[in-house]
Amino acid sequence: GVHLLSPAAERLRHILGEDDSTPTPTLFTEMDTLQHEGGELEWKESARWVKFEEKVEEGGERWSKPHVSTLTLHSLFELRTCLQTGSILLDLEGYSLPQIVDDIVDRQIADGLIPPDLKEKISFVLLRKHRHQTKKPIHRSLADIGKSSNAASSKFMCHLISPSNHQNPAQSRSMNDISDTPSTDQLKNKFMKKIPRDAEASNVLIGEVDFLEKPFVSFVRLAQATTLGGLTEVPVPTRFLFILLGPHGKTKSYNEIGRAIATLMVDDLFSDVAYKARDRDDLIAGVDEFLDEVIVLPPGEWDPKIRIEPPKKVPSAEMRKSVLNLNELGQMNGSAGGAAGGEDEELPAPHEFAGGLWLDIKRKIPWYCSDIYDGFHIQSISAVLFIYLGCITNAITFGGLLGDATDNYQGVMESFLGTALAGTVFCVFGGQPLIILSSTGPILIFEKLLYEFSKSNDIDYMELRLWIGLHSCLQCFLLVVSDASYIIKYMTRFTEEGFSSLISFIFISDAIKKMVAWKYYPINRGFKPDYITFQSAVAPVSTFCIVFSSVIACLFSLSCRLLLHLPPSSTLALSLSKKECVKYGGALVGNSCKYVPDLALMSFILFFGTYSMTVSLKKFKFSRYFPTKLRKLISDFSIFMSIMSFVGLDMLMGLDTPKLIVPTEFKPTRSDRGWLVMPFGKNPWWWYLASSVPALLVTILIFMDQQISAVIVNRKENKLKKGCGYHLDLFWVGVLMAVCSFMGLPWYVAATVISIAHIDSLKMESESSAPGEQPQFLGVREQRLTGILVFVLTGLSVFLAPVLQFIPMPVLYGVFLYMGVASLSGIQFWERIKLYLMPAKHQPDFSFLRHVPLRRVHLFTLVQIVCLAVLWILKSTFLAIIFPVMILGLLVVRKLLDLIFSQHDLAWLDDILPDKDKKKKEDDKTKKKERKAVEPESDEEVREIWTNMKLNSSLPSTHTQTRILFSPKFLVNFCRWRAKC
Amino acid sequence: GVHLLSPAAERLRHILGEDDSTPTPTLFTEMDTLQHEGGELEWKESARWVKFEEKVEEGGERWSKPHVSTLTLHSLFELRTCLQTGSILLDLEGYSLPQIVDDIVDRQIADGLIPPDLKEKISFVLLRKHRHQTKKPIHRSLADIGKSSNAASSKFMCHLISPSNHQNPAQSRSMNDISDTPSTDQLKNKFMKKIPRDAEASNVLIGEVDFLEKPFVSFVRLAQATTLGGLTEVPVPTRFLFILLGPHGKTKSYNEIGRAIATLMVDDLFSDVAYKARDRDDLIAGVDEFLDEVIVLPPGEWDPKIRIEPPKKVPSAEMRKSVLNLNELGQMNGSAGGAAGGEDEELPAPHEFAGGLWLDIKRKIPWYCSDIYDGFHIQSISAVLFIYLGCITNAITFGGLLGDATDNYQGVMESFLGTALAGTVFCVFGGQPLIILSSTGPILIFEKLLYEFSKSNDIDYMELRLWIGLHSCLQCFLLVVSDASYIIKYMTRFTEEGFSSLISFIFISDAIKKMVAWKYYPINRGFKPDYITFQSAVAPVSTFCIVFSSVIACLFSLSCRLLLHLPPSSTLALSLSKKECVKYGGALVGNSCKYVPDLALMSFILFFGTYSMTVSLKKFKFSRYFPTKLRKLISDFSIFMSIMSFVGLDMLMGLDTPKLIVPTEFKPTRSDRGWLVMPFGKNPWWWYLASSVPALLVTILIFMDQQISAVIVNRKENKLKKGCGYHLDLFWVGVLMAVCSFMGLPWYVAATVISIAHIDSLKMESESSAPGEQPQFLGVREQRLTGILVFVLTGLSVFLAPVLQFIPMPVLYGVFLYMGVASLSGIQFWERIKLYLMPAKHQPDFSFLRHVPLRRVHLFTLVQIVCLAVLWILKSTFLAIIFPVMILGLLVVRKLLDLIFSQHDLAWLDDILPDKDKKKKEDDKTKKKERKAVEPESDEEVREIWTNMKLNSSLPSTHTQTRILFSPKFLVNFCRWRAKC
Repeated sequence: GVHLLSPAAERLRHILGEDDSTPTPTLFTEMDTLQHEGGELEWKESARWVKFEEKVEEGGERWSKPHVSTLTLHSLFELRTCLQTGSILLDLEGYSLPQIVDDIVDRQIADGLIPPDLKEKISFVLLRKHRHQTKKPIHRSLADIGKSSNAASSKFMCHLISPSNHQNPAQSRSMNDISDTPSTDQLKNKFMKKIPRDAEASNVLIGEVDFLEKPFVSFVRLAQATTLGGLTEVPVPTRFLFILLGPHGKTKSYNEIGRAIATLMVDDLFSDVAYKARDRDDLIAGVDEFLDEVIVLPPGEWDPKIRIEPPKKVPSAEMRKSVLNLNELGQMNGSAGGAAGGEDEELPAPHEFAGGLWLDIKRKIPWYCSDIYDGFHIQSISAVLFIYLGCITNAITFGGLLGDATDNYQGVMESFLGTALAGTVFCVFGGQPLIILSSTGPILIFEKLLYEFSKSNDIDYMELRLWIGLHSCLQCFLLVVSDASYIIKYMTRFTEEGFSSLISFIFISDAIKKMVAWKYYPINRGFKPDYITFQSAVAPVSTFCIVFSSVIACLFSLSCRLLLHLPPSSTLALSLSKKECVKYGGALVGNSCKYVPDLALMSFILFFGTYSMTVSLKKFKFSRYFPTKLRKLISDFSIFMSIMSFVGLDMLMGLDTPKLIVPTEFKPTRSDRGWLVMPFGKNPWWWYLASSVPALLVTILIFMDQQISAVIVNRKENKLKKGCGYHLDLFWVGVLMAVCSFMGLPWYVAATVISIAHIDSLKMESESSAPGEQPQFLGVREQRLTGILVFVLTGLSVFLAPVLQFIPMPVLYGVFLYMGVASLSGIQFWERIKLYLMPAKHQPDFSFLRHVPLRRVHLFTLVQIVCLAVLWILKSTFLAIIFPVMILGLLVVRKLLDLIFSQHDLAWLDDILPDKDKKKKEDDKTKKKERKAVEPESDEEVREIWTNMKLNSSLPSTHTQTRILFSPKFLVNFCRWRAKC
Repeated sequence: GVHLLSPAAERLRHILGEDDSTPTPTLFTEMDTLQHEGGELEWKESARWVKFEEKVEEGGERWSKPHVSTLTLHSLFELRTCLQTGSILLDLEGYSLPQIVDDIVDRQIADGLIPPDLKEKISFVLLRKHRHQTKKPIHRSLADIGKSSNAASSKFMCHLISPSNHQNPAQSRSMNDISDTPSTDQLKNKFMKKIPRDAEASNVLIGEVDFLEKPFVSFVRLAQATTLGGLTEVPVPTRFLFILLGPHGKTKSYNEIGRAIATLMVDDLFSDVAYKARDRDDLIAGVDEFLDEVIVLPPGEWDPKIRIEPPKKVPSAEMRKSVLNLNELGQMNGSAGGAAGGEDEELPAPHEFAGGLWLDIKRKIPWYCSDIYDGFHIQSISAVLFIYLGCITNAITFGGLLGDATDNYQGVMESFLGTALAGTVFCVFGGQPLIILSSTGPILIFEKLLYEFSKSNDIDYMELRLWIGLHSCLQCFLLVVSDASYIIKYMTRFTEEGFSSLISFIFISDAIKKMVAWKYYPINRGFKPDYITFQSAVAPVSTFCIVFSSVIACLFSLSCRLLLHLPPSSTLALSLSKKECVKYGGALVGNSCKYVPDLALMSFILFFGTYSMTVSLKKFKFSRYFPTKLRKLISDFSIFMSIMSFVGLDMLMGLDTPKLIVPTEFKPTRSDRGWLVMPFGKNPWWWYLASSVPALLVTILIFMDQQISAVIVNRKENKLKKGCGYHLDLFWVGVLMAVCSFMGLPWYVAATVISIAHIDSLKMESESSAPGEQPQFLGVREQRLTGILVFVLTGLSVFLAPVLQFIPMPVLYGVFLYMGVASLSGIQFWERIKLYLMPAKHQPDFSFLRHVPLRRVHLFTLVQIVCLAVLWILKSTFLAIIFPVMILGLLVVRKLLDLIFSQHDLAWLDDILPDKDKKKKEDDKTKKKERKAVEPESDEEVREIWTNMKLNSSLPSTHTQTRILFSPKFLVNFCRWRAKC
């Protein structure tokens, strides 16, 4: 179309387009109003802007919360008038306030705006002292508590006197109350750290005087930013001055004009205009452009008194500027597209020998140093503690299970050693050091089946396992050099969410299962003290022990019986513990002999308490209490603090809850095996080859488990900057397979939930910038240090046993539960499940709900639920061994969804598969063309679609579009009509 | 000042002032846009407004959430142009759409705006079918799941074809797709109940056609609202029509104009103008007035894509209209002041004999019938259950304690009977039936001291008590007839909050104390199964029982021993329960013989579980899940559901937790007393007179306790409509004193916490009105039925024992804890305590923080905390008996605060004492005068101060003020300048 711009926009385009190389500094704006305090005139700070407005609460003597400046149309129009009629001094050479004031007043006189005899009076007013909000008024200290009820009236007297006072300038000490150097108050002001370093100040001075008959308006831009003594609250050099003095009676209106210019000065676009304006008309054009863009709220639907909280996101200055420079828009989109295409760069050479591995190494090497020193941060400590506890709990759990499954060929000791070894190696050399390796369920099941098979066929388990490991390692290498990791391109959100939800559910159900099983500590239900009876009592002496134990049994109505036959002639056992009884040949008979009272409920309290305390402390970050830093610390260390609290509670209660038991001696769990497995000699030679078949299963298992976890870790939501390393990761997992097989240690692969927990505990947010601006998620503290420390600590845990033994298992299960639940949060699948329970009108405003009909969303969710249910059922049966194949099944289901759902819906609910990408792109283009006329989507949404589809669309911003159609002609028309009224 | 109004405002003032008697109907606005669907033209609903905007999400096929319409200045200006140039048909006689369309097009032709040959085409377009969002598109049913991936492209084909289609009107079935009668879809639409009954519709039709060269604009007001078939989504008669058809290529802009007119139509002020406009210029003036009032958001601080949630409160239409009719403002303030002064009306005659009592009765009689039938509501059931459980718990607790204190002269039975009797009488006849009577702590302490005194002095306790009660009753009557209840005027928020916080703390601490005491169920700490030993074993047969019991003792490491000496010759006891053992002369020795395992922790779980489940279910009302009604039900019945759940859990576990035990037989607890106490005969005669001295103490106690609870119940925040009855309340409390004394029942007085719980459970909220409007708190379901039912049930509880015995005490303590915590919420004192822990910048935006310096707020809070601490300490000692005097002390402290705090600060933090009222009023007036020029406060704040101070201030709205100063001259100026650009 034809590019039509309004005259104002045309003008701005000209001046802003001139020199784009030097970005203008950020402006800090302070508005001071003229007050009569204690019989003297002074300028009192009344509001300030970094990005949003903060007002001084007169009565409360405090800063208001930062809020969006709501203006009236009036004030903006009046400001425009002020700029039209007042004097504009651009690039004034100024070195001190008196000189600047002199120049301003002289110009006004020269322009004939004020009579020359007012010069002294105006200068006097403009050079009065500035009082900032930081400085507490002296007359209101706590000392005068007794008088303060009278203070109001005395203050009132001052006010009555003051208006007449300031008419006599000689009464004040000097013409100039303002010092040249920043005061200590200014320098000590902590607010300084909220202002960007390069910032310059703009000062807005608004006052009422009685010697003027019409307003005195001046807009000044200094040639250089200059520190003008105590003019500004903070020691920031002043670049702009806006002065409005007027006759009495219009304070409210003057204040509104002041707020309007202050709001304009902090506007990205107008501040650029102000810096680059060549004359008055440029400034007016800036105001007009601002007026063109304002958002209007109807008076009946919004109360102007409501202070609007700053939004999470504001339109970027670039986007708004691009509207003016239309030809630049193409470039912008181009670069945005480039960034979106960045992911492709990481997997660029699908058909070159080991090309992926080589690229991974090339990508990782430059980051290696920073991978170490980026780890030095307090957050790392909490992350290490958290992940360490998760790891040892995992090591103990899987160690115990593996020990059961393999007759202790692999036990807790092997589990600890293996975790430490594999984890450390992976974190030092791996491609994505944020991934945490761990034993996983499928491998456990494989080992179990393998051990049973070898035992029943008289094959040496350890040797067979070694060969499977070696084959699997080799197969991994094959996958690495053939760049098979490109399959991750087919792992869309559907697969990711399905997999990680499944793993989270397993975590949660494991944690709960362990708690509700009550296996070792049942609750005693039928207890009645009266029921204590002797159920059997035979010959008095010899069966004494039987009687005694049956007493205990009856006491708890449980069946536990200690049988001991003492020779009839033995002396009466006066003091005989259960242990001694057992020593003399007694035996505990019954299934509840380990019953201990109170343990079940205590365990429940520890478990649930740890979980809920962790959740509450995590949430504490968003409460209003305590300073931000302290809250962040509490939130970061929430898990550690919960564990400590409940370990403390457990110690206080002194109950015999099941505790964490780590091996204390460094030796294989089974005494008949060494630390090294020999590859030859025990099995027939053909097993060395045949083992490649089960190895294939292991390889698929490891490959899928590893890569999908890596995909989840490398999600773009995590904003990782150091790139991924799928090939390198797989390479090291392969190497570790071989090493662990040789040493008879369990095999390790990426653990989804713990890796997510690792990432979560290392998330960075921007330090608070301008007041009211939301802290932004910056990314993850990507480094190798936390991982290395976690695994070194795991290795050292053998020596930490005396400390660790105080931790009750229920507390650790609570941590498990938290991990599982936390890794579910933020998953879109989960949000979509919740939608089932919400009536449509209460559903949150998700962007996919705006674009996909609810029943399609529900259908998609249902498919995911069914997939998950099927996976869950399979996982619970012996079929668990083909778990990796089931993930491949997820990929197939996703592929089939292309038949049921339109690519448009899938783009919103999932990602587009690679081969559909091109088709969708075309589809979308034609559709866009057609839709454009109907209802163009918002920039943000369009952007989201773009990234989703990895497209380089060149659709122009819709915002632009409207403006082109309507701006120029209409406004002229409006003004003509409006003037008639 | 001079009343200057802009020409537009002048015009509006004229037309709106004409006839204020008939309020204009509410407008429902629907915006339909022209679409080409399936090869045919049709009007598709794209947004609707009741008060806020709801947009049709095209992709999502759903309604958006209601939001504030954010407009652009452009669209408003363009709309103004449209109204300037288009045809305006006011008071058109219309009976069907074809006729109306005919008239519109004819007028356009007559005005020379369109050539006559377009008539048929335009009529054809305007008479196309209207599709509303309620109707689901057929082509997207679930049946075509398999095809839907192709649906997009086929739909796209339709769109390509359609633009050429509609040029041939003959292709369509008829000229008129619109039926005359409302369709079933319309009638079935549930949205109807969101629209007020008197509502009329305004329809906005926006479309693009290719036969027009310039826009076709028409604004129609029908003489009578007429149902025009399927034009509107709901069967609401149409009054206004706005039609905008234009050439292709400007859809976005047309839509924005449509949104602008729709927003204007639902604006209170503009809709009035639209109803009363005499010509085009009136409408333009309406737009101008709207523009004058709009709120402007700067583009750099707000993203126009954000949908703004409807605010909790919008400026009232009256306030906005009053700006136009300045002379009406004075009247408005007058009436507002009258409402504020309403409270005085209730206590108007301080010096007339029994004047207060008489007025109370006069005030209450007219409400008596509604007091009964207002109780028939489902909410009453939950309230009755909740309060009933609170009452019987209280009755049992105090009954038990009274029994201990008076050697069962008053026990649980008396407590039940007394509660039922006193409560029922009070609820039937009392002045404020929402108050719940109960035994209270101070009375308990008084009874205890009295009983000890009479026992040690050989005085008959019951007779003495009777005389004290009689004297006290008499003294109460004296207080009633002397209208002493006027003291409540000195009970400001300071006293209320202090008292109710104290009572809440007592509730909370009692609940927790009972739980952590573990008196009857200690936790067994040192249990080790191995320690089971025989500590003593003497002669085998005779002391068998000793051995056996020592086994139990050791088992739990507790000291409990059953001693039994059987004669040496007796046969061996083969089966001997503890009971039997005791029967044979054995004795339990030791202090932990009642130990039962697991009970402590189970009780803790029941207690804490009941509390937290109640809290969560209460909060559930604000969640997004399930329909609003269900959530409200869950929230209302939260306490009942929690109790049921944990009673169920307790039954499931089958543990012997302490249960609620109510007396089952109707007889005095102590068998040597009857149901009636005789006044004479047991004590010397002079006691009958002397007892008036202790009676004085009781009277003060009862008076203070009763009246302060009543003040809290009658708080204006509760919006009670049926008035208070302090004198009547006190009269009946006095009567009940006498009755209870005669029957030997405990004395009863208003219980703060339970009364607050009663009020809370009866709160009413407005049914959801316009979408997006917040439900308003309407008041409390004021009636006598719930109270009566509660106490009748309490009386019947003697027969409900078989059911009630399943309720474990810890569950009831949990309910107690909830009551205490809930009655703390919403107390400003509590909010102010929290401020101590918050950094200033995170503190909520309380209005008192804007006006009172933080250190003064903290000081005030500190004074309250100290008072509370002193009260708490006194309460815990024997001084508790002078508790009522301490409340008088609070009044004194409050009086002293006048010396430390200014009346301005106190007005914000507390209320003004009666005698300060006048002074403050004057103070404030002068201060206001002075401040007016500096920073006028918002209307709302001013209003708040007004109510706080019970003043009839005549300060004009600041909004008005600004407008007067600036409106007219400026706008003309602006337009002139603007036209130049």
